[in-house]
Amino acid sequence: MTTVAVGQPVNGHSHLVKDAATTSKITSPGEEQLVLNTIRCLAADLCQQYKGGHPGTVMGAAAIGIALWRYEMKYNPANPEWFNRDRFILSAGHACLFQYLFLHFSGYEAWTLDQVKNYHSPKTYGSMAAGHPEIEYPGIEVTTGPLGQGISNAVGMAIASKNLAAIYNKDDIKPIDNKIWCFTGDGCIQEGVGQESISLAGHLGLDNLILVYDNNSVTVDGRIDNCFTEDTSAKLLAQGWHVIDVYDGSNDLAAVLEGFDKAKRLKGKPIFLNIRTVIGYSSRKANTGPAHGQALGDDEVAYVKTQLGFKPEDRFVIPPKVYEYFSGIKDKGAKVEQQWNETFSQYRRKYPAEHEELSRRISGEWTTEDWQHSLPSKADLPQAAQPTRKSSGIVVQALAPKYKTFVAGSADLLESTFVNFKGQVEFQKPGSGLGDYSGRQIRYGIREFGMVGIGNGIAAYQKGAFIPIMSTFFMFWIYAAPAARMAALQQLRFIGIATHDSIGIGEDGPTHQPVALASFYRALPNINLIRPADAEECMGMWTLALDEQSKNTPSIFTLSRQPVPLLPGSDRNKVQSGAYIVHGADIEEPELTIIATGAEVYRAIDTAEKLKSLKKIRVVSMPSQRHFDLQSIEYRESVLRPSSNLVVAIEAWASYGWAKYAHASLSMHTFGHSAPQQQLYDHFGFEPSNMASKIDAWANKWISKGRLPGLGEFEELLLGYVQH
Amino acid sequence: MTTVAVGQPVNGHSHLVKDAATTSKITSPGEEQLVLNTIRCLAADLCQQYKGGHPGTVMGAAAIGIALWRYEMKYNPANPEWFNRDRFILSAGHACLFQYLFLHFSGYEAWTLDQVKNYHSPKTYGSMAAGHPEIEYPGIEVTTGPLGQGISNAVGMAIASKNLAAIYNKDDIKPIDNKIWCFTGDGCIQEGVGQESISLAGHLGLDNLILVYDNNSVTVDGRIDNCFTEDTSAKLLAQGWHVIDVYDGSNDLAAVLEGFDKAKRLKGKPIFLNIRTVIGYSSRKANTGPAHGQALGDDEVAYVKTQLGFKPEDRFVIPPKVYEYFSGIKDKGAKVEQQWNETFSQYRRKYPAEHEELSRRISGEWTTEDWQHSLPSKADLPQAAQPTRKSSGIVVQALAPKYKTFVAGSADLLESTFVNFKGQVEFQKPGSGLGDYSGRQIRYGIREFGMVGIGNGIAAYQKGAFIPIMSTFFMFWIYAAPAARMAALQQLRFIGIATHDSIGIGEDGPTHQPVALASFYRALPNINLIRPADAEECMGMWTLALDEQSKNTPSIFTLSRQPVPLLPGSDRNKVQSGAYIVHGADIEEPELTIIATGAEVYRAIDTAEKLKSLKKIRVVSMPSQRHFDLQSIEYRESVLRPSSNLVVAIEAWASYGWAKYAHASLSMHTFGHSAPQQQLYDHFGFEPSNMASKIDAWANKWISKGRLPGLGEFEELLLGYVQH
Repeated sequence: MTTVAVGQPVNGHSHLVKDAATTSKITSPGEEQLVLNTIRCLAADLCQQYKGGHPGTVMGAAAIGIALWRYEMKYNPANPEWFNRDRFILSAGHACLFQYLFLHFSGYEAWTLDQVKNYHSPKTYGSMAAGHPEIEYPGIEVTTGPLGQGISNAVGMAIASKNLAAIYNKDDIKPIDNKIWCFTGDGCIQEGVGQESISLAGHLGLDNLILVYDNNSVTVDGRIDNCFTEDTSAKLLAQGWHVIDVYDGSNDLAAVLEGFDKAKRLKGKPIFLNIRTVIGYSSRKANTGPAHGQALGDDEVAYVKTQLGFKPEDRFVIPPKVYEYFSGIKDKGAKVEQQWNETFSQYRRKYPAEHEELSRRISGEWTTEDWQHSLPSKADLPQAAQPTRKSSGIVVQALAPKYKTFVAGSADLLESTFVNFKGQVEFQKPGSGLGDYSGRQIRYGIREFGMVGIGNGIAAYQKGAFIPIMSTFFMFWIYAAPAARMAALQQLRFIGIATHDSIGIGEDGPTHQPVALASFYRALPNINLIRPADAEECMGMWTLALDEQSKNTPSIFTLSRQPVPLLPGSDRNKVQSGAYIVHGADIEEPELTIIATGAEVYRAIDTAEKLKSLKKIRVVSMPSQRHFDLQSIEYRESVLRPSSNLVVAIEAWASYGWAKYAHASLSMHTFGHSAPQQQLYDHFGFEPSNMASKIDAWANKWISKGRLPGLGEFEELLLGYVQH
Repeated sequence: MTTVAVGQPVNGHSHLVKDAATTSKITSPGEEQLVLNTIRCLAADLCQQYKGGHPGTVMGAAAIGIALWRYEMKYNPANPEWFNRDRFILSAGHACLFQYLFLHFSGYEAWTLDQVKNYHSPKTYGSMAAGHPEIEYPGIEVTTGPLGQGISNAVGMAIASKNLAAIYNKDDIKPIDNKIWCFTGDGCIQEGVGQESISLAGHLGLDNLILVYDNNSVTVDGRIDNCFTEDTSAKLLAQGWHVIDVYDGSNDLAAVLEGFDKAKRLKGKPIFLNIRTVIGYSSRKANTGPAHGQALGDDEVAYVKTQLGFKPEDRFVIPPKVYEYFSGIKDKGAKVEQQWNETFSQYRRKYPAEHEELSRRISGEWTTEDWQHSLPSKADLPQAAQPTRKSSGIVVQALAPKYKTFVAGSADLLESTFVNFKGQVEFQKPGSGLGDYSGRQIRYGIREFGMVGIGNGIAAYQKGAFIPIMSTFFMFWIYAAPAARMAALQQLRFIGIATHDSIGIGEDGPTHQPVALASFYRALPNINLIRPADAEECMGMWTLALDEQSKNTPSIFTLSRQPVPLLPGSDRNKVQSGAYIVHGADIEEPELTIIATGAEVYRAIDTAEKLKSLKKIRVVSMPSQRHFDLQSIEYRESVLRPSSNLVVAIEAWASYGWAKYAHASLSMHTFGHSAPQQQLYDHFGFEPSNMASKIDAWANKWISKGRLPGLGEFEELLLGYVQH
């Protein structure tokens, strides 16, 4: 049976059946009401004190919080980083006050009441009680807020846990047996990225994942039925989930616990707990939009307190019984960790090799070996021209089979992105005949945004234990951009493979040809956008991304579909400096420096050789603007010599951003077109003879002026070459 | 009954029932097989000739194409722009050859066989037979390719049609009664944006929308069941759709037609036609990934032809009977348009005012009036400081009630984005009690990407008949970015309201504070990213976006949450020049020019007044980099005087892109933080005294050097101010 319902149906959800009641787990039935009411009043006070924040979810879902933190979840508040803890993800990040309060009551030392009181405080900068939960703080597994992504993160964590369990658990000793709990509101359920992730979790049968739906049916704009009238339980059933309906989650703690109890026992599929609650419960604003995201107002706070048996004039009241009610958690947590420590000691004795590997991964090191020597030297790289996407695959082949830290995957473009590796097993539901949970090749489906949100969850599960490699065409990294941004914000390392990175994709046409996307990733803090010129730079790009310096930084490699030659001057060791002289390094006093990136670098070298007006020309490959900016001023001047020679940039993307490095650029000015790649390069002006003649004319102009162009004189030399 | 099945179940879809058979509509039963086989061989030949393209869908779904173009859709190939035509959207854009072939056989004059033969041709640049369908060409309603978005576009078209019908149809004369047909593959069904749009369409009960699912269960990477095992029909039922299952869509044309027939008769909900087909039907590669997106190979093409009764050595064979089979379409189309013309003439006579208004909208003009005078003059604007999001709302209030071209909406932030207007009716299913189809306020739900994809469909329905206004926080325009890009690519005008545009959002913290997103939109061709400094510039920004010059260009307004003062020097008429002197215009020979945008402009003016080392200072407001770039060099020099004074930019976003205009910038270098907005501005260094001291120090350095900074000397003056 996959559908059960507990509690009393209140909305005619007739296709679900009521299960036989189980014995209630409630241990302190007399105190529950006081605890619930205390938390509701606290929420009202905490939002009212600075007239901001989200009180409604705390008031409506307090019983769910009790069920989670007091009864169901396995964790040790004294050691929030304990490896085998259950993970809790608040996908409805705006309801962070809910999480902060329960972290406080559960005994997380850092989460004092004073810290929680900083919520929306105008006086305290940098408090832990931020407007959305932030990964930096104890008990918070991921930063959430942009809706839907928390569900993806939770799916990623469930994958991570299943994968570690499949690899390291033994029949007799199982160091990994935790659950992933995700708390979602109505918003995350509407967002497409949530849907993508729910769909994949159902396919994968992740029964360690419990999605707790705080179904209050109210969002910022009011009743959700003004825009959403699905039968969500029926939908999740159709997506391969177990579904449990609970009908009065605001009052009926016994029903909530019964639902959770069932959820923990169901196997073979992820579990959807659809719990109806009343947002802003006990306020007259209950069930309205204002209860969602505004302080209730002084009068209403007083009303709530009166209703719940508290004095309106007293604020932040916590009767001693409430702390008592939660007081057993610390001991329980210490005990459960202690038991696990013993288990893990046995594991060390019996399975020392596995223990060593797992311990290294827990500590966040992916290897202690000199792994760079497992990459082919330049002499051993293919000497014939080949696409950089293929050259990148050399590194996947070299590392992924050996190091279990790497979990590859693709959004339905596995063959195109070269993330396959020898001996790979797919991460699939055991018994599916397609793979099993020890697999490290994930078929994400045509779900780019979900893929990267899931990858973030894998990366955040135990920081450093996994490095997800995720791949699709560069253009579709625009679908994934909101999740890539969250990785950068949270300092989570992933490797993003972004192939078919320009008009070089050819016939697929403008819909598939990025011209502006790189500007976003170059402007974004803490992400490495790297565009290698050839196979040698591909070795350097991977080295940079896997290096200690990138431990807290995601990378995206933009790679060519079309072949590019191995350049005599390319050097893997110089990729980390962002830019270097790839051609003409022996020229002492250049008259012109051409900067280029990726598949345009060899064209830049050809162009340099075709120039008539100038002879002393250097070509600079600039795989990473970000890393070039990080170099010393002396190094940067030595590479570009911007005050003594003309500098021009060649890149088949928009010119945006190039004025910082060059006096002029040869760039795209429109969207692309559908035609073979060579034709497109010609059409948009990137044929070397054409580029040489444009540069010649421009350079002659400035030579005759006898000075270099200044601010405001940046030119786009191909502008007007073609009108789309 | 909402679920019916036709044909024979082949996959045990037992929860669906077989409906009573209806009389087959097939008019030429003997010829069908020949036609199907001809089309399959053509697909094989057309991909094989240049060894590229997507043959499989054409071969598998040919019967669906026949059903659509020969039997079901209402259109006139002689006039592809006929207003009341059915709209066909190929959401599976990579299968464009399917559409091209049927446009050819249906008699679209431009779609000659020679044009279709240009598919993937390396010789013909700029042919109509692009690798994905492009809106510029006859019979193609929207450009598709990025998966999932076509479903959104179709939902938008269904909304547009319902809205026009509700407003203009009369009990006795109904000039709008068309259907929207959307052809989707497995990919669009997986993408979150497709899910968002399906969900909203179900809520809205759009029974003029028929989603035809070419369910071949194969994608690039092979069988879809490696990543997708949903019961899609059950899911769509749960989402409020009628569902029709057809079990052998590759062979059983009668069943396909029966399904379509039912689809056209079902009311009250959108219709999902789940048609099982065999990709690459009749090839030995059928049901495999290679049949999806590769030419079959010479041997296999020969095999297919032999199987289908054609000679392997003959290419592009079209027996005369095939053209005969399609020959009735032209007459049918001419007749149906003629009938409609008569209807519309009656409408003109009986309802002249409505006819005039509708005709104007059909022609793409939103008004012929001097609408700018309906905006308040600067003197009549609120003189107290107010957020620019609120100032923008003044224009919504002034125009939306009056001009039916505007269809406003929000992704669950209606109150925050100020797109409400007086007397508005919500666009909702009639009988819902929430609104009706004449409504022009759409509750998109928490579905930002879906919202903009749907808006694109509204805008493309009849170009110029609608201007969708879509709103959310600026940060969530990153979710919508893939659709906003498609609007720019297709030259579709929308108005994007992007509020809470910076750290000024305050407590919500870094997840909600964009720092890099503007760089993407500024780099993107054909989109207006406008950041106004005050209420007066808000008037100018709307004027620019609604002006004739922006007829083919979407606009995004990034607006402040926090109040900004009305600036004495602001001027709505200068917004269209991209930048102008807002303070210090009387200074002849400035020593320093400060550029700023949006909510930082008044801070820049304060900063100018606090500077010690320099006294002759101008402040330039630059609401649009794009429009500034479009000005003459003389104008640009007059505004910035880059060769004769120091120029510094102030903007609470990343510095990326500013080196083109300024010698230095005061920018964000990290993600934001959770705190009240004023604290954040202080913390990140944007407090005017701090900015003045940074600029003073920097300016003194250059004054003592006796020259202006050159290339490579761009500085970020707040760098290092704070580490996140």
